[in-house]
Amino acid sequence: MIRNATLPDGSRHDVEIRDGRIAAFLPPATNEPGVMLLPPLVDGHIHLDKTLLGLPWVPNQAAGNAVADRIEAERKVRAARTVSEEETGANLVKQVVASGTLHMRSHVDIDNQLGLRNLHAVLAIRERFRDLVTIQIVAFPQSGLLRSPGTAALLDEAVAQGADLVGGLDPVGIDGDLAGHLDPIFAIASRHGVGIDLHLHDGGEGGIAQMLAIAERTRTSGLKGKVAISHAFALGSVPTDLAARTADTLAEAGIAIMSHGPGAATMPPLPLLRAHGVEVFGGSDNIRDAWSPFGNGDMLERAMLIGYRANFRHDHELRLAYEMVTEAAARVLGLADYGIRIGGPADFVAIEAETLAEAVAARPRRKWVLKAGRVLARDGVLALP
Amino acid sequence: MIRNATLPDGSRHDVEIRDGRIAAFLPPATNEPGVMLLPPLVDGHIHLDKTLLGLPWVPNQAAGNAVADRIEAERKVRAARTVSEEETGANLVKQVVASGTLHMRSHVDIDNQLGLRNLHAVLAIRERFRDLVTIQIVAFPQSGLLRSPGTAALLDEAVAQGADLVGGLDPVGIDGDLAGHLDPIFAIASRHGVGIDLHLHDGGEGGIAQMLAIAERTRTSGLKGKVAISHAFALGSVPTDLAARTADTLAEAGIAIMSHGPGAATMPPLPLLRAHGVEVFGGSDNIRDAWSPFGNGDMLERAMLIGYRANFRHDHELRLAYEMVTEAAARVLGLADYGIRIGGPADFVAIEAETLAEAVAARPRRKWVLKAGRVLARDGVLALP
Repeated sequence: MIRNATLPDGSRHDVEIRDGRIAAFLPPATNEPGVMLLPPLVDGHIHLDKTLLGLPWVPNQAAGNAVADRIEAERKVRAARTVSEEETGANLVKQVVASGTLHMRSHVDIDNQLGLRNLHAVLAIRERFRDLVTIQIVAFPQSGLLRSPGTAALLDEAVAQGADLVGGLDPVGIDGDLAGHLDPIFAIASRHGVGIDLHLHDGGEGGIAQMLAIAERTRTSGLKGKVAISHAFALGSVPTDLAARTADTLAEAGIAIMSHGPGAATMPPLPLLRAHGVEVFGGSDNIRDAWSPFGNGDMLERAMLIGYRANFRHDHELRLAYEMVTEAAARVLGLADYGIRIGGPADFVAIEAETLAEAVAARPRRKWVLKAGRVLARDGVLALP
Repeated sequence: MIRNATLPDGSRHDVEIRDGRIAAFLPPATNEPGVMLLPPLVDGHIHLDKTLLGLPWVPNQAAGNAVADRIEAERKVRAARTVSEEETGANLVKQVVASGTLHMRSHVDIDNQLGLRNLHAVLAIRERFRDLVTIQIVAFPQSGLLRSPGTAALLDEAVAQGADLVGGLDPVGIDGDLAGHLDPIFAIASRHGVGIDLHLHDGGEGGIAQMLAIAERTRTSGLKGKVAISHAFALGSVPTDLAARTADTLAEAGIAIMSHGPGAATMPPLPLLRAHGVEVFGGSDNIRDAWSPFGNGDMLERAMLIGYRANFRHDHELRLAYEMVTEAAARVLGLADYGIRIGGPADFVAIEAETLAEAVAARPRRKWVLKAGRVLARDGVLALP
């Protein structure tokens, strides 16, 4: 029994747990201050194979700010690794569980040099932590498809071996060939009946044109509701009316938009997207890796960063940021058994906060993280048996 | 004696403390892992009188996003306060000390409705915490000078009663009268021989023109090196060559630029400013107040936010962010007795980090905060006698 808990909707209950599930919400037996209970945090975009967590500090080595510079820098960092991706990725999983994340979508680098090595590392991580967390895997062509010949076949093989979705990367900005990049990706997804989650950094009208092409293929491939575009910086760098029209097209195709609240790139206009029926969700993106020194996988902090970058100040705006790292991300990931409801899993993150707005703005310490009624972490520290 | 400490320059020493000061740096007697020692964090821009810390959660009430909307919303929130500014400000001082900040510059709202009420509250806070922290006070005309007739005389009186600097606010954007706003401010500063720190949110070429006017008055008033411009969003919203020419003018006048790493406004180009000889420093700005739900006064987190917004990734960039919340801010505040050196004060923030870059990116928990060799806080919690 969890006494006098405040739920995300602001109501207060004693929460009865039986056999790892929520058995009942009862009137609070006491007036003593209780915790606020959130459902598990959901990270809609993480790179478990990129993090360097657990290695000595690795200075960033990118020669420039372009995506291509960073891809090149990552190759060097990868070659110099002294700890395997499986180990650093496991370090990250433990860290995010301690902060309350129990579900995540991880992109996994695949190219013609790496082959399926990183996929195998993340499959092993998924297996190791299968009782704790859901890890959805995106087969991600980090080096492009055309720039890295043979990658399309590897993506196909990756899905056959257990990846849940096919990824993509700036069809024009990286591969310089919209159809040459998108056609194989949609073909693989259609063949296997899986979804797609593409990285799209390309900005301006060129980025918008790529989104429209993705929406068109989504419709014609029967993948409505199974496609996401990550980053989508372009939506924040074009006039509002063009962003709104694009939003309508995205909504029709059921395409979701992931934002991590980028530090310097333009933010997609989240409330506008929502108002036009587009699902928006959050993710960590890079966490202490060759791309970025920042990030720690704390999705309440991520909600804060999203809200900070989006200029959110009102409670209903902070609630949107909260939903992006919980319910909305859960919907995009297709999590069937998610949410605080009678009969639902006794999976909770307990914090001290009066309101969801405060939870996002203050990101209080996680008092405990529960899965199926079992304590996984206490005060931000893993408490596994 | 602090064993095997890593200093900001990466060197390792046993640090001998005697009578509250650093007596010697000795070769480490052991190889056991020690802490990293930073000098105290410095908050170059805080609003001790605005925070609502310690009140129940107060939703943001601004009707729009303009500065004027927020000024109006703050009036409502202030009128509904159930806890005094003196108490909430004291809560904030305790919180920032626990995170390692021992020096700060606080703006204090003054207008013809408030009079000097908030000044008196912050003077009382300064007195209460005089043995722990340095609090520099800026007499800040939050409602403008011309829009709030009588405020100039109040600013003058505020300096007479103990404010250390005169403030200002968007001469054109708020008062609509460049000279009408700046002339009284510079006159008060000259009369009392104090410095100036103005809020300038106005963007674009209009904002640049105001900076140049401030620089011109700084030179003619003999205030070189005693003037700061806070926010200076305009420097990030004009072409680089104009920003560079403006930087030269600012450098000649010894004008420092404060940035808090704004969530949605444009960032001043920090490395460019530095390269042109402009001192750049950091501050929290709003912390859980009528302006913003965000912020917690942790200046290592602020350095992260500044670096995140500035697109910093390399170690030398993260070092710049670190300097903005330590040495550079200490120079702007004119702190005479600051820094880790033999004979210097045994004021330290101890963290677990290998490098300054890691300290900024990861913002580790403050293991302890020392002042004159005395422990003020441990693991982020105040430990006052």
